[in-house]
Amino acid sequence: MKKHKVIFQPSGRRGEVEDGKTLLEAAQALGVDIEGLCGSKKVCGKCKVRIEEGYFEKDNMESGMSHLSLISEAEKKHIKTEDGPGIRLACTAEVHGDVKVFVPERSRAGKQVVRKAAKELTITLDPAVKKYNIELTPPTLHDMTTGDNERVLKCLEDTYGLKNLTIDYLVLKELQDVLRKGEWKATATVWMDSEIIKVEPGFVETCYGLAVDIGTTTCVGYLSDLITGKVVNTESMMNPQVPYGEDVMSRITYAMTNPAGLETMQKAIIDGLNEIIEKVVSEIVKDGPNPGFAIDDLTIVFNTAMHHIFLGFDPVYIGRSPFIPAVQNSMNVKARDIGLKINQSAYIHVLPIEAGFVGADNVGVLIAEEQYNQDEMVLVIDIGTNGELLLGNRDKVCSTSCATGPAFEGAQIKFGMRAAPGAIEVVQIDPDTREPRYKVIGKADWHSHLEKINAKGICGSGIIEVVAEMFKAGIIDKSGKFVMDLKTPRVRKGADGKPEYVLVWAEETSIGTDITVTQGDVRALQLAKGALYAGAKLMMKRLGIATIDRVVLAGAFGSHISREASLTLGMFPDCPIDKVYAVGNAAGDGARMALLNKGKRIEADHRARWVEFIEIATDPAFEKEFMQAMHIPNMKDKFPNLKELLSKSGSKVEIKG
Amino acid sequence: MKKHKVIFQPSGRRGEVEDGKTLLEAAQALGVDIEGLCGSKKVCGKCKVRIEEGYFEKDNMESGMSHLSLISEAEKKHIKTEDGPGIRLACTAEVHGDVKVFVPERSRAGKQVVRKAAKELTITLDPAVKKYNIELTPPTLHDMTTGDNERVLKCLEDTYGLKNLTIDYLVLKELQDVLRKGEWKATATVWMDSEIIKVEPGFVETCYGLAVDIGTTTCVGYLSDLITGKVVNTESMMNPQVPYGEDVMSRITYAMTNPAGLETMQKAIIDGLNEIIEKVVSEIVKDGPNPGFAIDDLTIVFNTAMHHIFLGFDPVYIGRSPFIPAVQNSMNVKARDIGLKINQSAYIHVLPIEAGFVGADNVGVLIAEEQYNQDEMVLVIDIGTNGELLLGNRDKVCSTSCATGPAFEGAQIKFGMRAAPGAIEVVQIDPDTREPRYKVIGKADWHSHLEKINAKGICGSGIIEVVAEMFKAGIIDKSGKFVMDLKTPRVRKGADGKPEYVLVWAEETSIGTDITVTQGDVRALQLAKGALYAGAKLMMKRLGIATIDRVVLAGAFGSHISREASLTLGMFPDCPIDKVYAVGNAAGDGARMALLNKGKRIEADHRARWVEFIEIATDPAFEKEFMQAMHIPNMKDKFPNLKELLSKSGSKVEIKG
Repeated sequence: MKKHKVIFQPSGRRGEVEDGKTLLEAAQALGVDIEGLCGSKKVCGKCKVRIEEGYFEKDNMESGMSHLSLISEAEKKHIKTEDGPGIRLACTAEVHGDVKVFVPERSRAGKQVVRKAAKELTITLDPAVKKYNIELTPPTLHDMTTGDNERVLKCLEDTYGLKNLTIDYLVLKELQDVLRKGEWKATATVWMDSEIIKVEPGFVETCYGLAVDIGTTTCVGYLSDLITGKVVNTESMMNPQVPYGEDVMSRITYAMTNPAGLETMQKAIIDGLNEIIEKVVSEIVKDGPNPGFAIDDLTIVFNTAMHHIFLGFDPVYIGRSPFIPAVQNSMNVKARDIGLKINQSAYIHVLPIEAGFVGADNVGVLIAEEQYNQDEMVLVIDIGTNGELLLGNRDKVCSTSCATGPAFEGAQIKFGMRAAPGAIEVVQIDPDTREPRYKVIGKADWHSHLEKINAKGICGSGIIEVVAEMFKAGIIDKSGKFVMDLKTPRVRKGADGKPEYVLVWAEETSIGTDITVTQGDVRALQLAKGALYAGAKLMMKRLGIATIDRVVLAGAFGSHISREASLTLGMFPDCPIDKVYAVGNAAGDGARMALLNKGKRIEADHRARWVEFIEIATDPAFEKEFMQAMHIPNMKDKFPNLKELLSKSGSKVEIKG
Repeated sequence: MKKHKVIFQPSGRRGEVEDGKTLLEAAQALGVDIEGLCGSKKVCGKCKVRIEEGYFEKDNMESGMSHLSLISEAEKKHIKTEDGPGIRLACTAEVHGDVKVFVPERSRAGKQVVRKAAKELTITLDPAVKKYNIELTPPTLHDMTTGDNERVLKCLEDTYGLKNLTIDYLVLKELQDVLRKGEWKATATVWMDSEIIKVEPGFVETCYGLAVDIGTTTCVGYLSDLITGKVVNTESMMNPQVPYGEDVMSRITYAMTNPAGLETMQKAIIDGLNEIIEKVVSEIVKDGPNPGFAIDDLTIVFNTAMHHIFLGFDPVYIGRSPFIPAVQNSMNVKARDIGLKINQSAYIHVLPIEAGFVGADNVGVLIAEEQYNQDEMVLVIDIGTNGELLLGNRDKVCSTSCATGPAFEGAQIKFGMRAAPGAIEVVQIDPDTREPRYKVIGKADWHSHLEKINAKGICGSGIIEVVAEMFKAGIIDKSGKFVMDLKTPRVRKGADGKPEYVLVWAEETSIGTDITVTQGDVRALQLAKGALYAGAKLMMKRLGIATIDRVVLAGAFGSHISREASLTLGMFPDCPIDKVYAVGNAAGDGARMALLNKGKRIEADHRARWVEFIEIATDPAFEKEFMQAMHIPNMKDKFPNLKELLSKSGSKVEIKG
C-alpha cells in the first residue's frame, strides 16, 4: 500500500498515511483535533482546512497536479468564495500524495471545558460491595478436610451471618498465598452479599467505587469512598468517540458504515475510561502495578447508543424503527469481560434503560430526582446531546425523548461551537441601543464592543441567551423573524441575503470575521426548543394536567443556561421562575446513588419499568403542538409568570398572561 | 545469551538451546521424548543418554574439552560401567557447546497405550444444560419498551416456566443479530435453569457436553450427546505434563522449583485439553471456525494436584503438611476464564474434592459406584498413579489415600516401564520348570524362550502378575525372599550380588540385556501392595467389620491386572474371586454421570462431605498392619477364598485358610 507524508499546521504534527485516507482520518491518526460535528457525513461543513502544499485546484490556484482527490459536489456546497483559496473539507478530501495542511482556528476542536462537579448527596450508605475482616484458625492435620476457601466461607458465615457465598475464580487463584501472607488474618470483599470478589491479607479499612457517566460529549468518573460515602476525586475527559461523530446518530452511522466501526469506538471509550480510572486513583493509591484494582465496584449510566457501543452491542437496531435495544434490564458484567482495569473480579453495574431512546442516564436522573416520591408535579429536562423529559409525581411519571437536534450544542449554528475557551456563553443586549455585552469561557469579565478578547464562536448556553435577548430587545419577533427597520448596523442582511445580528465584530475575534446570529440560527433554536416544549405538552395531556409546579434543569448544559432566558424562549411551559432549578449532573448523581446504596439499584430496575414511555413522534397531536411551540414563547399558551418577570425587568415585549 | 546446537538421534531432531540448559530441557523443547519418572530429581536414573559428539570425559574417552557440564556425584551413582562410554543423565548434564546425543530405546518415553473406553451408563437424563426452542413476535413501534433480551426472557418464562434467568454478557453481544438471522425463531441454551449461555438462530436439536478425566498420566474426554445421553466420541492423550514429572509429587516439586513452573504446566494441560476438544468434535461438527464451541457443558475430575495445577492454584500447600487444598467445594468456572475452547459462555463444572489427597476423581468413583446406596460392604480400589480406597455401604463410607509409590506404574522397578508397546503385561510361570511365558502389549500371542519379540520392560500389571507367579512357583517365599536352591539358570545373583529372576533373556529383547525381576523389585511391590492392604484393614477397623463382601477394581490399571494375581499377592483382604470386579474408568464414569444428570452434582457435593476421610499415616496401628501386609498374601490374616482358589489351580503354595 502506497503511503504519503502529511503535515498539519500550526501543530506541526506529521506522519505517513495510506493512499486514499481522508485528511480527517489522517488527523485522527496523528492526534490532530479537527471539528467533525456530523461524523463525516459532509453536512456540517465544520472541518474546513486549507491546503498549503501539494494541492493545485485549477479554479483557485495555478494549474498542476493535485495530491488530493478532486472536489466533490457535496464538498462544493460548503466551500464559499470568502473562505479563500485552497479550502477543503477534511472529511472528504482524500490523500493521494504528500500534503501540508493548515487547520484554521475555527476548525480546531478545542479541549472542551468539562463542568460536571460532584455535589453532596444525602443517602443511606449501603453499598453493593462491602469489606469484612476475618481471622481464621491456622489449619492443622486434624482439620485437613477443610480447604482454604471453605475456611473463609465458614468464618464469614459464623462472624457475619453471610450464607451461601460463592467466590470468584480469580480470587481463588490468589487465596492460598493471601491467607498465609496475612498470617490467617484477611479482608474479604463481598458483592451483593453473594460473591467474594477480593481477599486481601491483613485487615483493610478502605473500599473504593467509581460512578461513571458517559455522555455523548464528555465522560466523568466520581471516585467514592464506600466507607464514608464521600467523593474523594473526580476525573473527566472528552468522550474519545467524538472524532467518530459528534452526536449519537453520527456514531451509529459510523458503526454501520465502517467494517470495524463498533470495535473501534468501543475500544476508544474503554481505553478512555481506563485513563479516567488510572488518573482518578493515582493520588489515592500509590502502590502496586495496577492502582485501579483498588476499585471494587463501578456503576455506569449513558444514553442507549453509548450504552450499546460501550458494551459492544450493534447500535444499528436502536437507530432505526422500531428502535429496539439489545437489553433493557440492568446488567452486572465482570470488569475483566469488558476490559476495564479495576479489580478484575469486580462487576460493572450497568443501570437499566427505559426504552430505545431513553437510556440509563435518564434512569439515573429519575432515581436522583425521585419524582415518584413527591406530591408536586415536576418536569425534569435533561439536555445533553439529546433532550429527555420526565414529568410526574408519586402517582405516575412519564418519560420521553425529544429530537432537539444539535442546536443546543452549537452544531447547525453558523458560529456554534462547543463549550470550550473562546466560546461566548453569557449575553446581554441593551433593549434601546441593541448593543450587546458578553462573557467568554476562560475569562471572568463582561466584554463589549472593540475589546479584542479572542472570541471564536457561541456555545449552547450562549445561543439560548443571545436569542432570548434578541427577542427581549425586539430584534426578532414572536415568530422568530428579524425586525429589519432597527437603527443599528448590527442588524443587517448577510452574504446570503438573509437577516443576521452581529454579536461580535471581526476585530474583536480571534477568527477574523464577524460573529453573527443568523435567521437560520434562530430557526434551528426554535425547532429545538419547540420539540422540548411540545414533548412536555403531550406529557401534560397524557397526565391530564394544565400546569406544572416545578421545572428541574438537569445536565451540565442545564446548569449553565439562564433560567430566565430558557423561560423567555419557551423551552418549557410557564412556571414561577423561583420554581425553576438547575441540579447539575443528575444522571451522574443517580450513578453515585446506585454505587452507595444497593437498594437504589432495585429502585432503578423497578422504576425504569414503572415509568411510562411516551413516543411523541407518533402522537397525532404532536405536529400542532410543535408548530405552536416554535413561537416565542408559544403561539397559544399563556405565560403569566413570564409576563410578570418581563414587566419587572422593564422589557417592552408583550406576552400572553 | 549464548546458544548451542543439539542433535538428538535416532529421531534426528535438532535445534539451538541456551547455554546451561539440561539435555532433558533441550529434548522437551525439541519434542524428543525422554523418560523422566522422577521429575529431574536425579533419583530414577531412567533418562540415560549417550553423547556421540562434543563430549570427552577423561575417565572413559580420550581427554579433551567437554561441551557438557562435568559429571556430578548424584549422576555418578546411576552410571554403571556396563552402560558403556559417554553415558549421562539427561536431567543433569548441562549444555555448554554443540552436542550430538543418542537416546537409547529404553530411555525413550514410548507413546503410552491409553485404555479408557467409555462403558454404557444407566442414568436418568437431566443435564445441567438444556436447549429450548423459542419463537418471538417481531417487535413493532407499539412494544418498543421491550429489549431483545427481555423478549427472550419473557418467551422462556411463558413457554417453559423458566423464571429469573440471567444471560451471559457474550451471548448478549450476539443476540440482536442471532434473533434477526433466525427471523425471530431461536434456540436458547440454559445452564442450571438459571443462565442463558447461548442463543442460536432457528431451531437447533443437538446439544453436546464433554466429560473429562485428567489422570496423572493420561487424559480422556468423552463427548456426550446431551439429548440422547450417548457417548458419540472419545479422545485421549498422554498428560502433556508428563515431561515435568511422572508423578504428582514430581510435578508439585517442579512447580515449587521453577519460577514459571505452575504456569508452564497449567498451559500444557489446557493446551492438551483444547487438543482433545478439537479432535473429539472434528467429526461431529464440520462448520464454523471454532467447532469446539458446539460443546455447551464440561465436567472434569482429577486428583487434587492435577486439580490445582489445571486451575492455576499453587500446589505447594497440598504437597506438605497439613495438606490443605485451596478449595474443596465443586466449582463452576467460565470456559473463557480458564482458556478452554468450548462455548465461551459455558461453565466448566469441577467436581468437589474430599480431602488434601483424595480428589475429584475419587468423588467421581464414589458417585459412579454409589456404595452409599448398597447393603453389601464394598471396597473400591482406584489405582492410578496414587492408590485411593473407598470402603462402606449405605450406613457409612470411608475414604483414604495410600502412598503406594510408583511401583504399580513401573517406576522404581529395574525394568519397569509404562503400558506402552514392548511392555510385558501378562505372565505365567510353570511351577515345575520355572520357565515363563508372557504377552507383550501390541502383540496378541503368548511368547516364551528364544522368541525375539522386542520386549522392552514390564508394565504395572505385568509386575503384579510376574511376582504373583513367582510366589506360586515357589521362586519367592511368603516374606518375598528369593529361594536360591532352585535348579534353573533364571534364578541367579545379579551384578549387585542380590538375587534376581530372568524373565526374558537378552536375545529375546529389543534392549540387548536380560529383563529381570530383582529382589528390589519384589520389595517395591510388597511396599505398594502392603500400603493398600493396610489402608483397607484400618478402614475395616474403623467400620468395625471383619470381612468385605465385594472388591471393585477401578481405573485403567485396575481393569488390566489379573484379579487372581492381585488376590494372590494380597493387594486387598480375602474375598470370593467372583466378587472381585473391574469397572474400568469409574472416575470418568462419575464425570459423565455429572454431565448427564445435574442431580449427580448435588449428590457429589453432598457425598464428598459425607464420606469420612481417614488419615492412615497418623494412625498408630498403621505401622503394624503395614508390616504384616508386606507378607504374601499377609503375615497373620486368613485367606480362605484364596486358599480354595490356589488349591483348585493345583498350586503347592500353602495359605492360611
